[in-house]
Amino acid sequence: MKTKGRVTVPTDVDVIDETLRIIDLWGADAIRDCDGTNMPEELSKLDIKQYATYYTTRKDNAWATAHPEEIQQMYLMSDPTTATKTSLRIPLMKHYYEKQLKVNTIDDIKRWWEVIDRTTGEVFPVENWSYDENTQEVILNDCVPFHAYTVSFLAFVIWDPVHMYNALTNEWKGEEHQMTYDVRQPKTQAYVIEKLKRWIKEHPEVDVIRFTTFFHQFTLMFNDQAKEKFVDWFGYSASVSPYILKQFEEEVGYPFRPEYIINQGYHNSTFCVPTKEYKDFMQFQMREVAKLVKKLVDITHEAGKEAMMFLGDHWIGTEPFGPYFKDLGIDAVVGSVGSGTTLRLISDIPGVRYTEGRFLPYFFPDVFCEGGDPIKEAKENWVTARRAILRSPLDRIGYGGYLKLALKFPDFVDYITSVCDEFRELYEHVHGATPYVMPFKVTILNSWGKVRSWGTHMVAHALWYKEIYSYSGILEALSGMPFDVQFISFDDILNDEHVLDGAGVIINAGDAYTAYSGGEYWDNPKIVAALRKFVYEGGGFIGVGDPSAYQKEGHFYQLYDVLGVDKELGFSLSTDKYNWNEQAHFLNEGLHDPFFGEEIKNVFALDETIVLKDNRHNIQFATNTYGKGRSVYLSGLPFSFENARLLYRCLFYAAHEEENMKKWYSENCNVEVNVYPNTNSYCVVNNTYEPQSSTIYTDKDSYQIDLEANEIRWFTID
Amino acid sequence: MKTKGRVTVPTDVDVIDETLRIIDLWGADAIRDCDGTNMPEELSKLDIKQYATYYTTRKDNAWATAHPEEIQQMYLMSDPTTATKTSLRIPLMKHYYEKQLKVNTIDDIKRWWEVIDRTTGEVFPVENWSYDENTQEVILNDCVPFHAYTVSFLAFVIWDPVHMYNALTNEWKGEEHQMTYDVRQPKTQAYVIEKLKRWIKEHPEVDVIRFTTFFHQFTLMFNDQAKEKFVDWFGYSASVSPYILKQFEEEVGYPFRPEYIINQGYHNSTFCVPTKEYKDFMQFQMREVAKLVKKLVDITHEAGKEAMMFLGDHWIGTEPFGPYFKDLGIDAVVGSVGSGTTLRLISDIPGVRYTEGRFLPYFFPDVFCEGGDPIKEAKENWVTARRAILRSPLDRIGYGGYLKLALKFPDFVDYITSVCDEFRELYEHVHGATPYVMPFKVTILNSWGKVRSWGTHMVAHALWYKEIYSYSGILEALSGMPFDVQFISFDDILNDEHVLDGAGVIINAGDAYTAYSGGEYWDNPKIVAALRKFVYEGGGFIGVGDPSAYQKEGHFYQLYDVLGVDKELGFSLSTDKYNWNEQAHFLNEGLHDPFFGEEIKNVFALDETIVLKDNRHNIQFATNTYGKGRSVYLSGLPFSFENARLLYRCLFYAAHEEENMKKWYSENCNVEVNVYPNTNSYCVVNNTYEPQSSTIYTDKDSYQIDLEANEIRWFTID
Repeated sequence: MKTKGRVTVPTDVDVIDETLRIIDLWGADAIRDCDGTNMPEELSKLDIKQYATYYTTRKDNAWATAHPEEIQQMYLMSDPTTATKTSLRIPLMKHYYEKQLKVNTIDDIKRWWEVIDRTTGEVFPVENWSYDENTQEVILNDCVPFHAYTVSFLAFVIWDPVHMYNALTNEWKGEEHQMTYDVRQPKTQAYVIEKLKRWIKEHPEVDVIRFTTFFHQFTLMFNDQAKEKFVDWFGYSASVSPYILKQFEEEVGYPFRPEYIINQGYHNSTFCVPTKEYKDFMQFQMREVAKLVKKLVDITHEAGKEAMMFLGDHWIGTEPFGPYFKDLGIDAVVGSVGSGTTLRLISDIPGVRYTEGRFLPYFFPDVFCEGGDPIKEAKENWVTARRAILRSPLDRIGYGGYLKLALKFPDFVDYITSVCDEFRELYEHVHGATPYVMPFKVTILNSWGKVRSWGTHMVAHALWYKEIYSYSGILEALSGMPFDVQFISFDDILNDEHVLDGAGVIINAGDAYTAYSGGEYWDNPKIVAALRKFVYEGGGFIGVGDPSAYQKEGHFYQLYDVLGVDKELGFSLSTDKYNWNEQAHFLNEGLHDPFFGEEIKNVFALDETIVLKDNRHNIQFATNTYGKGRSVYLSGLPFSFENARLLYRCLFYAAHEEENMKKWYSENCNVEVNVYPNTNSYCVVNNTYEPQSSTIYTDKDSYQIDLEANEIRWFTID
Repeated sequence: MKTKGRVTVPTDVDVIDETLRIIDLWGADAIRDCDGTNMPEELSKLDIKQYATYYTTRKDNAWATAHPEEIQQMYLMSDPTTATKTSLRIPLMKHYYEKQLKVNTIDDIKRWWEVIDRTTGEVFPVENWSYDENTQEVILNDCVPFHAYTVSFLAFVIWDPVHMYNALTNEWKGEEHQMTYDVRQPKTQAYVIEKLKRWIKEHPEVDVIRFTTFFHQFTLMFNDQAKEKFVDWFGYSASVSPYILKQFEEEVGYPFRPEYIINQGYHNSTFCVPTKEYKDFMQFQMREVAKLVKKLVDITHEAGKEAMMFLGDHWIGTEPFGPYFKDLGIDAVVGSVGSGTTLRLISDIPGVRYTEGRFLPYFFPDVFCEGGDPIKEAKENWVTARRAILRSPLDRIGYGGYLKLALKFPDFVDYITSVCDEFRELYEHVHGATPYVMPFKVTILNSWGKVRSWGTHMVAHALWYKEIYSYSGILEALSGMPFDVQFISFDDILNDEHVLDGAGVIINAGDAYTAYSGGEYWDNPKIVAALRKFVYEGGGFIGVGDPSAYQKEGHFYQLYDVLGVDKELGFSLSTDKYNWNEQAHFLNEGLHDPFFGEEIKNVFALDETIVLKDNRHNIQFATNTYGKGRSVYLSGLPFSFENARLLYRCLFYAAHEEENMKKWYSENCNVEVNVYPNTNSYCVVNNTYEPQSSTIYTDKDSYQIDLEANEIRWFTID
């Protein structure tokens, strides 16, 4: 019995018949166009759901050109420039791409720009600098020799960075640079709303308007060689304009400073502990963006169409895990799935009717070429994401790109057929049911909390960075585990002392002084005392990397007493350290040659701590008892099935639940078990590309199983 | 022709004839007793210089017992103890060795003790705590649950830690524990002075009084298992008493706080950036110790004897590189030589008539035993130290321990004969002459400056620590190089802007936030601007490890612009980094598989910087041009001959003197050349234990040379 539905395929004018065949083969129930493809008229008559990509902020250069003051803007910072005498010329656009960004001199530069002495941190007096429009330099007088200065300034985004990226990557020739315009500003807002209404009338065949996305691009700048200069998928630097900032000032009641956005040149990276002003700005933007999104969604609904949001490009301010999103009435969210973590970044979004994952690989010529191996990429992507789907399923899957490229790889087409069938099968088991979760929560504690659910330790969506992989393995492991995972912030603890009640096992993971470990929050006695109390009274705490790091009063890890470890920065070298011997323990049982990622140097154990793994006098793994509670320290946890299993052990141990670990459990860490009480079923799934054997523990007994590569096998619970 | 002199041998009552034979064989001109040996009467009549060890602070338990209030004291800190309710009992002596230390309740505990809430950093009100003498616990009332508290308190040093160490190490049985007494206090001072006078009268045969040392032991505590708990060879924590501290208060005009000594439990380790109060205290102690040393030296001189100071044990406050030492009239300093660096810690001391190095190995049963290889240790010690002797010679060498043990190893005795002859030969060439130095200075910049000349990055004299070897290699390399090396502090720069004039190449080396890299000094715009100016105008700068590290205004290395590198702490992960390609350069010419010691993570190069060595995107070696000056970054420089050569190249390059590097130069880095213009001679020295060949460059030409293992060969300059 061929199943059908829950699959979206891309189409184009040159693959009409083939689209029909693929729809049938994959059991698709929706088709879509993409940036660079068009919906064929023949297909628009089909009884199948049609998605249309819709851009609110670009693809209308006539409008942009006619309203230069409503082109989108971004705060930029010049290179820090060191004075060698008492005057200095700072070139603003050095190292920026002039085809993307253009200095804004329309708005009052003395009000909206800021020159800062970065050697003192002080604002340089506005009367002591001027701007030379010809050379694009800011000229400082009476500056201090050998101090470094920066200029924060506004620039217009004269080439949409995503359009630019697509044009450069796909080598589109003769393409007119698409300018951006700011839907938040009054003239453009009115225009865009009317234009949407008109477009809807002109496109009765469209069922789903797939907004790409709404109003503000994440921060993305290019350098003078048209190479990426700065990318932050969470960044708000391109969501500014004097129009918006004046509203912000009115709302918060204090004057705006460019530094609130520039933030020393870090642009409020999610790795920076957020300032009060940045948090205020995010809240303001969320509220304002929500209001305007609501208008567009209502228009869509009035026309009897669905509103789908693409989680990418211009998604800034929508914040799906923020306080407003769930009330916007958006029907669906679609996003790119690169891992279990990015899957849950979509599938866990509250308040939408359905979510859709765009799976890899894109049907683009980089993979679908002579010598390319799209099946390999598809398998890796599917098996990785499947762990998370089994916990929190998407409602739909889909693909993007040029269908004609995929058609040249018939084995690939067959493989995707099996994926679509498998997806529908597991959806039947999982949909509507709460998968079985273990009887304790897992709580991720950092400076962001809920708003960055599943979005911690990320720079450019799901790219690998040396500085993050040792931490992002934690969320990747959790994305496929039977836990209720919650994300809380330090502010949550300060605002409500009961937020830790029932928190189960708290994880604090990150490099020192970053928003993820917490930085100056650990200078706050309320935070330190709350965490100590939580563990002392029986809670679990897992610290990874530099947990609770903040140099103060003789300790670097402020929870040294909970963790049983601290870090030697040199100050206490005079204190002898004797506790280096690894001990056998539940936690390191069966642990062979573990890989803890990037080295965290000079962590040592306090006297009572149980050392589980020491590497050249860098403690990588240790545990401690604190009152009725338990803690575990790990130096890092890159994703692997072995490490996921290690984390599983740590969680059960920290929760005092190690006796109950072997329920719905596979002895072989490459195999996992997921249980669905509502459908009275469970599955055993092989996450690897080789056959696996394992002993499976149900809640009653255990048995042996042999699984094919990637196999998922379903069972009914007796 | 057998040469004679400049050698001291240890003797004992059981080796009288053998001592005479050794005196003859080694050409010795002095004999000495040691802790645990006695000078035989027969030898005291010899026409040979006699040293007698003299202890001012111990070996008189009758006095100590009769004056318990004048026993030496040490500030201790209890374990940080976390309250779980609003009252707390803190055991003071937990983890301390009760046979070494005894709580001082004679002096007013409410005045001299301090309870600190280490979670807030605030002093806990004195009225809210009390002391239970029976349990040795401080009892806190109205404390905050889950805050951690410490008690700083005074303890008497009831067993001299060096005597204790010797007794435990040599397993002396039935030895009475030697108590300490404080020569700074009035009764003891009068007593010790009279006693010295009496002793001098009773010992007319003694020529040299070898003080071991003067008044204050470096900080050394033992734990409850009689194992070392804390050791800081530079530490002042055992130089305190209410008597002294009241004088200190009067001098500085502000009230004393125990925290000035305790310093969060770090006890003002030299790795901590010194506080104002600690610097005040050191100055005070230096002045007061100097006054009292002068008295003892004068008494010694009046009796026609020489005063020799042992640089160790109770040397605290004497500070040989401090402002007072050179005027004390001390005749000689003797100290243990473990390396080139520790040799220069002695041989560079100003204001004494001569210096003596105590070479290794000690004639102790740990090496002079079945299977022991004392020749190997002696060779390594001699060859290592010889590099430094050739730059700044000691005037004498000597040995310590039990002579009878050495006599059992006739080959060792022969080897030392050759060492003594070689020492005298090179002393003839070097003594009185200034060795040739290169035409630019090398300046070590840290928080300590001159007072810690050759004493940077040290914990327990010359022991190896993982956290220091990557830095201590720099001084070890310099100890044998033809440079005028000066040590300056950040305070020197703040006090006198001309201190950097002629500084040549400045080296700033150390871990982030330590006194050696500078920590909060880099928050001072004057420091940053002064260093930038120095390099911009043509100076050289070498940064090692985390130079100028202080997180501020968008940068971690505050001299990022000078160094051309910065460190990624996560905040700027969003900024793309493209400069990773190693370039061929004068600096990495011939550099194969270098070892830079402990990894410094996530250092990246700015755009214009020349990358010389990258290890997995951790820059280990780079150079930059800054105005007329040049900088070099190195992640670390453990000592090896290859790394010494690397530093040599860096110094010449940074000084713009690379054209002149190959003068008095050996192509083979295992061989060095030293020149003595005053004696018109130079030597070529093989620093290794294998034969070496090299090309030698004089100031005129070059030639080939083959050297035996360890060989030093002398030449006359034509």
